[in-house]
Amino acid sequence: MIRNITNVRGIKCWGAHTGVKSMRRDLAIMYSEVPAKVSATFTQNLVCAAPVKLSQKHLKETGGIARAIVVNSGNANAVTGKQGEEGALAMAKATAEELNIDVNQVLISSTGIIGKEFPTDEVVQGIKENVKNLSENSRAGSFAANAILTTDTFAKEGYVEFDIDGNTINIAGIAKGSGMIHPNMATMLAFTFTDVNIEQKLLDKAFKEAVNDSFNMITVDGDTSTNDMASIMTTGLADNELITSASDPNYKLFKDKLNELMIYLAKLIISDGEGASKFIEYRLSGAKNKKDARKMVRVVSDSSLVKTAMFGRDPNWGRVLAAMGRSGVNFDTDKVDLYLGNEQESVQMLDQGKPLEFDMNLVKRILKKSEIIIEMKLREGKASAIGWGTDLSTDYVMFNSMYTT
Amino acid sequence: MIRNITNVRGIKCWGAHTGVKSMRRDLAIMYSEVPAKVSATFTQNLVCAAPVKLSQKHLKETGGIARAIVVNSGNANAVTGKQGEEGALAMAKATAEELNIDVNQVLISSTGIIGKEFPTDEVVQGIKENVKNLSENSRAGSFAANAILTTDTFAKEGYVEFDIDGNTINIAGIAKGSGMIHPNMATMLAFTFTDVNIEQKLLDKAFKEAVNDSFNMITVDGDTSTNDMASIMTTGLADNELITSASDPNYKLFKDKLNELMIYLAKLIISDGEGASKFIEYRLSGAKNKKDARKMVRVVSDSSLVKTAMFGRDPNWGRVLAAMGRSGVNFDTDKVDLYLGNEQESVQMLDQGKPLEFDMNLVKRILKKSEIIIEMKLREGKASAIGWGTDLSTDYVMFNSMYTT
Repeated sequence: MIRNITNVRGIKCWGAHTGVKSMRRDLAIMYSEVPAKVSATFTQNLVCAAPVKLSQKHLKETGGIARAIVVNSGNANAVTGKQGEEGALAMAKATAEELNIDVNQVLISSTGIIGKEFPTDEVVQGIKENVKNLSENSRAGSFAANAILTTDTFAKEGYVEFDIDGNTINIAGIAKGSGMIHPNMATMLAFTFTDVNIEQKLLDKAFKEAVNDSFNMITVDGDTSTNDMASIMTTGLADNELITSASDPNYKLFKDKLNELMIYLAKLIISDGEGASKFIEYRLSGAKNKKDARKMVRVVSDSSLVKTAMFGRDPNWGRVLAAMGRSGVNFDTDKVDLYLGNEQESVQMLDQGKPLEFDMNLVKRILKKSEIIIEMKLREGKASAIGWGTDLSTDYVMFNSMYTT
Repeated sequence: MIRNITNVRGIKCWGAHTGVKSMRRDLAIMYSEVPAKVSATFTQNLVCAAPVKLSQKHLKETGGIARAIVVNSGNANAVTGKQGEEGALAMAKATAEELNIDVNQVLISSTGIIGKEFPTDEVVQGIKENVKNLSENSRAGSFAANAILTTDTFAKEGYVEFDIDGNTINIAGIAKGSGMIHPNMATMLAFTFTDVNIEQKLLDKAFKEAVNDSFNMITVDGDTSTNDMASIMTTGLADNELITSASDPNYKLFKDKLNELMIYLAKLIISDGEGASKFIEYRLSGAKNKKDARKMVRVVSDSSLVKTAMFGRDPNWGRVLAAMGRSGVNFDTDKVDLYLGNEQESVQMLDQGKPLEFDMNLVKRILKKSEIIIEMKLREGKASAIGWGTDLSTDYVMFNSMYTT
């Protein structure tokens, strides 16, 4: 009844409890009734988990075609050596056997504790028992969204739709973020699904750009995990004419909606920063190029000084400017405007590099809210970027400083 | 991006962490921009919590008009005496003050531990700090859905829509169910919202009937809590012509969609039975009247013998028939048909009271699935009922037998 991944034509799924996690669902199976085109991006961390390696290998073998994505939570199957590699392969094999599909059309993903023996038997048994439950009911979509969580405090589901010549195109996804209490488990996963009929290379292009505008623009603590994975799978079962060109207006429609969905999922991840008290949106415009714009947003949103100021409700715009200045991007500091605000109101703090007198009561009201927008305007060019982050709270420090003791 | 209660015209909400629960959101605020019509139903338990009493009083005073619903989780404010009554009133007062509305236009609800001093200061402080975050963003709807949970393993959100003369009518809701580990916290809450323009007495009628077909037809362990509450609030902001008669076809449209939503939420609650391995739908038709049909479904779905048989994957139809027989409803046992199945396939076990030979492999396959349908056909009349329950597992018994030790 909630629209989610089960609304995508040809996608069935399930989320089950196998016993790896205590009491909660810990196995998600997403299945396409037809061979589906897949684009995926994986962790850049040199320490890369067994399921990541296997999924990369499978995508290479098939040229980007898959039928199923299977995710277990509770154990990351990372730094598990040969036992882990065998476990990953066993997951894929069991899925292939139950679904009667090729083993290299199965992608797998794991999230949870690192460096602990992989519970192959439980996960394989769970796969065998639950393939038969695959369903198009929207409850099944929610089960899958919940089954991929670790320390997340809530499930992350998103859905968008648009029209091509009277055909509804569905795009939906599930994600998990990084509960900040356990940096060991701070894996980011996102699995999106659509039924748009589109050429592989354009799917790749749209997905890559959407990742750059969404998951690559969020930061909780700057760490990348051993298991990060984001993917899109299209069944192609919408009846639209095949999209074959980036100049096709329908390509742009698709790309914009995909961006919207993935940004929504990325923002949900930021909203779930345990120990964080603020959700902060960073908007930068007037940069020379997109690369510069993104870089500056990332540096500012990662700055501990900016983040602690936001926690302390301190309108310390100097720290924002300082972070911009050390970002490695060249810009004229005498031409910077800065604003602090939210969707309803905003206050200009800096005008062409000059501090302004501002209404302290208004600023206090803005900083008291849970969601804050920091806007930076340069005068170097026309490129812009948006990113999202949290504040840095005493709770965060307390949780993370006590983790190993 | 997920359609939820924030899609209802005039509804804003938020879900926040105040500290009553560790690390998780524990305060939900739902606000209507206009005075809204409300129907609500409360626990039948003689031990009835302070917030329930206060909300009942407020609805009586206003004749069913409210502007806000505030829910805290973590502490049920039940069996808390005068301190609890004062705490409940303080919640309503703080909300009214921050929103600048009448105190009796605030409904409150609490869920969590029973018999523990109510943390008035934390909850009131949380209300004061979070009214300013009220938002129409769908993330805010998910925050609210998560903030009302106790031992639930996932948030329950539902959304449906329909058209009246080209106007989209939105109906959406959030719910929480009974994690079975802590029977002390097994409160069932459901808050639904719509923007349909309808007379109060018809809202009452539609809601009452929908409750009878949904939340009154689910059972986990037959207990009712001190804090149970279900409500519907309509802002009336859809531009449809006021519905004033139950014979208006738009009334039927509304009622059917409301039923659909509330049944979806009820089924989500059953899906979240920790320690339960099966979701069972009971369909009964051919009863003399609706009351009989509902009664029989409730008795069968509550039967420990039926539930343990389902856990044991045992096609023991005799137990179903026995439960029907002791339900207090008169029927001709020689005219009963029984079926065991799911949405895809089913097997007849009993034909006009006579046991049939059946394909044991097919039955085994059906009983292995997580979701099972038991169908009972009488030949007494034309009334029918559907209900939902779980199996009774060794895990359930283990959790609940160890709770106090």
